[in-house]
Amino acid sequence: MSMADRDQTSIDPARRRLLEGTLGALGAAASGTLGASSLEQTKRQGLGPGGLGERSAFESISRQAAYGIASLTPLERLHGTITPADLHFERHHGGIPTLGPDHELLIHGMVEHPLRFSLEDLKRFPSVTRICFVECAGNYFPRGDTSTPQMLCGLTSQSEWTGVRLSTLLREVGARINATWLIAEGSDAAVLSRSIPIEKALDDALVVYAQNGEALRPAQGYPLRLLLPGWEGNTNVKWLRRIELTDAPAMSREETSKYTEPLRDGSIRQFSFELEARSVITAPACPQTIEPGWHEIRGLAWSGRGRIDRVEVSTDGGKTWQIASLQGPVLPKAHTRFNLPWRWDGQQTELMSRAVDETGYMQPTLKHIYKRWGPGSGPYHFNPIIGWLVRRDGEIRFSPTA
Amino acid sequence: MSMADRDQTSIDPARRRLLEGTLGALGAAASGTLGASSLEQTKRQGLGPGGLGERSAFESISRQAAYGIASLTPLERLHGTITPADLHFERHHGGIPTLGPDHELLIHGMVEHPLRFSLEDLKRFPSVTRICFVECAGNYFPRGDTSTPQMLCGLTSQSEWTGVRLSTLLREVGARINATWLIAEGSDAAVLSRSIPIEKALDDALVVYAQNGEALRPAQGYPLRLLLPGWEGNTNVKWLRRIELTDAPAMSREETSKYTEPLRDGSIRQFSFELEARSVITAPACPQTIEPGWHEIRGLAWSGRGRIDRVEVSTDGGKTWQIASLQGPVLPKAHTRFNLPWRWDGQQTELMSRAVDETGYMQPTLKHIYKRWGPGSGPYHFNPIIGWLVRRDGEIRFSPTA
Repeated sequence: MSMADRDQTSIDPARRRLLEGTLGALGAAASGTLGASSLEQTKRQGLGPGGLGERSAFESISRQAAYGIASLTPLERLHGTITPADLHFERHHGGIPTLGPDHELLIHGMVEHPLRFSLEDLKRFPSVTRICFVECAGNYFPRGDTSTPQMLCGLTSQSEWTGVRLSTLLREVGARINATWLIAEGSDAAVLSRSIPIEKALDDALVVYAQNGEALRPAQGYPLRLLLPGWEGNTNVKWLRRIELTDAPAMSREETSKYTEPLRDGSIRQFSFELEARSVITAPACPQTIEPGWHEIRGLAWSGRGRIDRVEVSTDGGKTWQIASLQGPVLPKAHTRFNLPWRWDGQQTELMSRAVDETGYMQPTLKHIYKRWGPGSGPYHFNPIIGWLVRRDGEIRFSPTA
Repeated sequence: MSMADRDQTSIDPARRRLLEGTLGALGAAASGTLGASSLEQTKRQGLGPGGLGERSAFESISRQAAYGIASLTPLERLHGTITPADLHFERHHGGIPTLGPDHELLIHGMVEHPLRFSLEDLKRFPSVTRICFVECAGNYFPRGDTSTPQMLCGLTSQSEWTGVRLSTLLREVGARINATWLIAEGSDAAVLSRSIPIEKALDDALVVYAQNGEALRPAQGYPLRLLLPGWEGNTNVKWLRRIELTDAPAMSREETSKYTEPLRDGSIRQFSFELEARSVITAPACPQTIEPGWHEIRGLAWSGRGRIDRVEVSTDGGKTWQIASLQGPVLPKAHTRFNLPWRWDGQQTELMSRAVDETGYMQPTLKHIYKRWGPGSGPYHFNPIIGWLVRRDGEIRFSPTA
């Protein structure tokens, strides 16, 4: 059984029994009686059916704005791997344009016959659906020791996307043999544009019009966005209006002044498309306060290079590591749930997780990142191991680990 | 390669090229120019980030009420397989109760120590996530030849659910060896209750608190529901407040006067839990009007018994059948997308689909259902092949097929 095939059921049975036995203290002894509030509810007719099934008034959940240019998914409030569409993170360079379903996509440049596709045209082509994450290359906003998973990693979200293969459209327009790049351009006030190697376009790139079953949300590119599974978020151009085939990159603003990384020797890393493996423990995590006893450590791991092979978790500040269970199905370039039972003895300690993907890449420590890229590295492709300090009073604090 | 492993990429390449070549007529010839509305949008700053990413004002979508007791998922408006939580169908017998997070679950009866679990207690147990559908046993509301997929099959929806295994909770309370059934009871005005064999509880039953990543919606049982993958919807008791272990079924209202099926010989089929394989073409389908030329036939197939093995599609009223492509991953007891390219020649014809699951069960015709169960069969477990009549004017009508 490969690492990627393991799932919840593979927790060591003895450990699981121990966990469950102790957690049993959670339930309150009962003598066959129901709480008063439960009985009361059965005395009156409930609400009838409606057009939309709204959230419970008892559950408020929303994204968190960051610097007026982004909003972050509340990872520590979510379960499973699918992000509700209205909680998908957003990041834009010129705000969200108001586009209608009359929006068109032009494909031109080094092609036999340039074409404009309406939204309806695109929906008639063979459709493809896949579950994958989209993550911003700058997904790291620590603000001191009260940073939460949302602040540290909330610029990643996952959806089930549906659209048409970009390779299908390139066949339609007759891409010329010497076309090696394409420029994808958005219809926002920033006219955000990125250069994409033709190989990605012919591999798994999609032009998507649906997210979690329905039309894209405006914040996610309504009515059309490019989807480049595993590649940094800004290359997944939203409000996509134009694709131009060329034989050189455009050297656009977003690939020169932004989304490049300075290196130790003073040179600049450019076209760093693929997102490296990463993980974060979402519980226990700041701002939780916990009691001594058994807990299930839960988190998310993902890699732009393929499937998560394994997630290792340390409950002693990195001295020893255990392999967490992965919740199947483990999909490529997708958020993957991991969990591990853990008994807290009430002493101060530190929780950490590190992801390893199927290429063998292991999520690095902050020290390793600085050693490799230089002390001024970031804010892009910054994927350090995240530590959670568990204090003796049970409060949990972010602990950037060196 | 097994049937279940096939996906979009396995369409015969020659046929795909033909499809795409002809669909190319969809794009409008262009000389590198963008539409005026697109240019206009780039001239003004767009909307800033917000707490929730709302739907586009250009896309209105909602469920459809049926008989004041249910609302139906608009299957023909959706893509992929995940149903947005607010579009999940609803069906209730006493309306939606207003429950808070202080709701508790009592497990008692033939157990060593009855326990009451708070919502927080349940969230601390080892968590499990799975994608599966929930379908009402009475999912069939034809209203003449203008019936849509929503009306015929809209009482099925799919979510990513998270919760705790019921087997974990039964171990906590110490289920007695002679407990063979459990009674699951809701906290609604109908006090809906169903008897469930202990085998299902120990197999894949979950007590779930999350749907598509977040808290259950009230219409789906907030804060707790039972999830019995593949079993008729009403057994997935919503607003779950009580589980009693017994050695006999309760013979509750919902398993005597309802959710039983009269047979030819005058006897009654009872405890018909498992949902049989089913499929529906969602496009082209009523109320669409189509033009001659190439179309992608799209639909959903599912079975309560396991994975979909294959979906067969007829474009000539059932004379010949072709095997459709399945979109992977094909998960057990889950909605599965199928599609098949089809060229309409402008003549009247009829489209049909039939699902075959991994047990070998094939979705029956209406004639077969009547032959097996009698002419008065239904309204439960009614899963006939659905036919779409394509008229010469391109309008599509529901055609119940005998």
